[in-house]
Amino acid sequence: MQCCRTSRTPAAEMAPLSWKDALLSALDYKTEKYVIAKDKKVGLLYRLIQLFLIGYIIGWVFLTKKGYQETEESVESSVITKVKGVVFTNTTASGPRLWGPEDYVIPHQGEGVLFITTNFIETPNQKLGYCAEVEVPDGRCTENGDCAEGKTVVAGNGVKSGRCLRKEHNSTGTCEIYAWCPIERSHRPCVPLLGKTENFTIFIKNFIRFPKFGFSKSNVLETPKDTYLKRCSYDEVTDPYCPIFRFGDVVRRAGHDFQDMALLGGSIEVLIEWYCDLDRGYSACHPRYSFTRLDSSAAANVVSAGYNFRYAHYFKSASGQVHRTLYKVYGIRLDILVYGKAGKFNIIPTVINLGSGFALMGAVSI
Amino acid sequence: MQCCRTSRTPAAEMAPLSWKDALLSALDYKTEKYVIAKDKKVGLLYRLIQLFLIGYIIGWVFLTKKGYQETEESVESSVITKVKGVVFTNTTASGPRLWGPEDYVIPHQGEGVLFITTNFIETPNQKLGYCAEVEVPDGRCTENGDCAEGKTVVAGNGVKSGRCLRKEHNSTGTCEIYAWCPIERSHRPCVPLLGKTENFTIFIKNFIRFPKFGFSKSNVLETPKDTYLKRCSYDEVTDPYCPIFRFGDVVRRAGHDFQDMALLGGSIEVLIEWYCDLDRGYSACHPRYSFTRLDSSAAANVVSAGYNFRYAHYFKSASGQVHRTLYKVYGIRLDILVYGKAGKFNIIPTVINLGSGFALMGAVSI
Amino acid sequence: MQCCRTSRTPAAEMAPLSWKDALLSALDYKTEKYVIAKDKKVGLLYRLIQLFLIGYIIGWVFLTKKGYQETEESVESSVITKVKGVVFTNTTASGPRLWGPEDYVIPHQGEGVLFITTNFIETPNQKLGYCAEVEVPDGRCTENGDCAEGKTVVAGNGVKSGRCLRKEHNSTGTCEIYAWCPIERSHRPCVPLLGKTENFTIFIKNFIRFPKFGFSKSNVLETPKDTYLKRCSYDEVTDPYCPIFRFGDVVRRAGHDFQDMALLGGSIEVLIEWYCDLDRGYSACHPRYSFTRLDSSAAANVVSAGYNFRYAHYFKSASGQVHRTLYKVYGIRLDILVYGKAGKFNIIPTVINLGSGFALMGAVSI
Repeated sequence: MQCCRTSRTPAAEMAPLSWKDALLSALDYKTEKYVIAKDKKVGLLYRLIQLFLIGYIIGWVFLTKKGYQETEESVESSVITKVKGVVFTNTTASGPRLWGPEDYVIPHQGEGVLFITTNFIETPNQKLGYCAEVEVPDGRCTENGDCAEGKTVVAGNGVKSGRCLRKEHNSTGTCEIYAWCPIERSHRPCVPLLGKTENFTIFIKNFIRFPKFGFSKSNVLETPKDTYLKRCSYDEVTDPYCPIFRFGDVVRRAGHDFQDMALLGGSIEVLIEWYCDLDRGYSACHPRYSFTRLDSSAAANVVSAGYNFRYAHYFKSASGQVHRTLYKVYGIRLDILVYGKAGKFNIIPTVINLGSGFALMGAVSI
Repeated sequence: MQCCRTSRTPAAEMAPLSWKDALLSALDYKTEKYVIAKDKKVGLLYRLIQLFLIGYIIGWVFLTKKGYQETEESVESSVITKVKGVVFTNTTASGPRLWGPEDYVIPHQGEGVLFITTNFIETPNQKLGYCAEVEVPDGRCTENGDCAEGKTVVAGNGVKSGRCLRKEHNSTGTCEIYAWCPIERSHRPCVPLLGKTENFTIFIKNFIRFPKFGFSKSNVLETPKDTYLKRCSYDEVTDPYCPIFRFGDVVRRAGHDFQDMALLGGSIEVLIEWYCDLDRGYSACHPRYSFTRLDSSAAANVVSAGYNFRYAHYFKSASGQVHRTLYKVYGIRLDILVYGKAGKFNIIPTVINLGSGFALMGAVSI
Repeated sequence: MQCCRTSRTPAAEMAPLSWKDALLSALDYKTEKYVIAKDKKVGLLYRLIQLFLIGYIIGWVFLTKKGYQETEESVESSVITKVKGVVFTNTTASGPRLWGPEDYVIPHQGEGVLFITTNFIETPNQKLGYCAEVEVPDGRCTENGDCAEGKTVVAGNGVKSGRCLRKEHNSTGTCEIYAWCPIERSHRPCVPLLGKTENFTIFIKNFIRFPKFGFSKSNVLETPKDTYLKRCSYDEVTDPYCPIFRFGDVVRRAGHDFQDMALLGGSIEVLIEWYCDLDRGYSACHPRYSFTRLDSSAAANVVSAGYNFRYAHYFKSASGQVHRTLYKVYGIRLDILVYGKAGKFNIIPTVINLGSGFALMGAVSI
């Protein structure tokens, strides 16, 4: 029975034929045989699936996922930050001091990662000389033999001189070391000395570019009112596009109390998201800000809590001797990350998505 | 009629049979029934589509997109930069000064993000004391009551002392503040004081590694001539592989005038792209450089234009009093980004692409 | 013969019918016609392919690739580093000096990219004045005319004064320049002066977050023993989860000798990988560390070998004159990168993978 024989390739058919026939039969094609079944239940199911698929393709692929758009996820971005505010401190160790952004923002150069000092321990007038090591495991001693000369104290502050310094004859003391003396006292203040940084403002300038679409934008509102930028303050509801953030608000939005966090320091991520539908025009492309504390899981762990580091200012006396002021600073680091995704109508993804939609419907009918 | 009954699984057939039959019928398989149609027009169309698909698979998938290669997009990269050049300035405020890279490049450590100072305002010999606030909204006053003692001036330079300083009795003045005095004058020079940085050179060392292929390379030409690196200068046409860039050229290639941009500062992205066909060998893998200004869209916006920040050098007088020199610097930040993509022949993607090619042709014949 | 006619769409069949028939025939569906072939060899092959596919789907897709999980590759990460250790140097040029982390780690602020000084050249007491340029191509001269006044020396240290300084009348000399004098001697020490940094420890705190799963973790072991963190040292076998790394070990694990690398400096990548199967619980998610030298390919190239840069400390004498100490430092830069991937059971990828598995088996049977 001719119509029922199986055939894998038309080529198999054309083997013994003449050239003309071969050429003609090269234009043959295969088609499958179908039966029209009239089962009402299966038919209903079949139509329902088709309906569901059409809904999926139109509602999900095209309207929700914007399948008619070419998208770009790699955004070029530049972040410039500027902090404003001054704070006055007056501690017994260091006397009156005025902190400006050039002092409490580290590094100075306004990058996307910035550390704002909120607490500090100052050790002024350190000179190179001999003094007693602080209480670290490797610095303890009961006799001079515990302090081998020339060895550095592990996790300590200097080089052992060979002498053990004890208050009484039989007590435990600490080794004498060659170091920057006096050594930093390790009593952290109980309140953040720069707690007033809560009211300081951080101006975040963010420039983005989607190279595929040649689209550039900044998060700084193009407003005719020059004064808006000088006075506004970011608020999710009332000022969602103001690029100036109160430092205390940033911490609060990340879910933490500023004065608590300022004591030991920490790390906060500021995420700027740009989801831009470029079919809706330049003005519909807006940044969205979100704030997360990154180091919160360490709150319970005493050894590694907070964020601090040390730096020193070096001075020379009239006689040429060097002395320094050592700062141990605690503070909050802001990591400003930018993520962007843009879409624009393009015929190619539209055709591909339509095509795969039809293919899906075809596959279901099998 | 045997050949026409529909059957979804062979399992449905083997139910009532004996074990031996069941085993044998497990080796049955289904095959579809075809008809050979001889419509010439449809046949021609069918062959044309096949031809187009073969062309697409060979021309696009294999030759253009290199479908026979395994690709890797995650490149490990290290950037080290070094700027060379000195510039001499002589301003009335600060006297003669010589700027070396240790002064004008911030940070010093030769990272992939570097700021090169092109203009500055120096305020030497600032001491902690009392002076008049500059003209900021929160610093203006008409009577002492406007200057609540101990309050910091918003976006200002110090802490109010409680006195209002006025030139005449009824005029508007500014609050007296405790601050680093004298306060920075805000007159920016009209020409970039470090405009000669235009001729300075930036040596960009970039090391890349494609971990999947164990392939490493540097953008520094492996040349026997030691002197080439000391004298060459990047040029798209004549020296596309020289890693030394004239600073002025970088700005020019980004489409801006150096002296214009140097006045207020800005941000430029240097993109190094490595597209490497590792089948063509080590020497065929080259970097490609491109330059884009990132902050250009802000040119019109006066408040947020340019790029500047402040830092201070602290000194101690013989009597122990601290004074400082404050610098407000304007400059151009270079963000050096590296993007890489490598491909190498691999049997797996070749088979997959061939397979999906055949599958596509099969799908079309249905 | 009814069952054998070809039909592309059921719609083609329903054209001349009444509304009721149209509605009913809308519930028709197409089904293909099959033959049951009983060829034993092909049947065996068919079953073998099916078996292979089932093995592939269960073994590879589900067990190895965890196809039943929803995965997330974008990890939010924060890195805080802290280096401990002091080193004492005593050179003829600069006298005794004690280096703490506040001196040899650059930048100070404990970021994920840190440079540790291992060697240095100190040039103390530089003052602005006139002295001879060092031997650079543009600084050589045979007569005063070679030293045009006011021109800066290319790749040199200062501005030409117009005089050529020669030892004898007919010899070649170098131009006199206005610069920070004396100029840095370019003799690098033959052993790394800070070679003892090999024993210093680097504490790497890493906090990660998979936002999709709301999962946070730190690489710092949550251990009741407070002392473990103070004493442990990372080792692949015995202490794979200790976050404290001996600096010398980091270099050794990257495949290099510490004292060799410390002489000229270099760049090392520390990769922290988090592959987390969140179905197995919080405690099964661990970091994995790996170390790679990034700049090794440049070892042969003399001009660009190593990693160094300069910085200066500025001082003012009692008379107000500025002088400075210039440091040229060599060292090792650590780039700490974090990569993470998490998976968690989710019904959607399970269904999709099961579905595409069945589809594959269906495709094979055709």
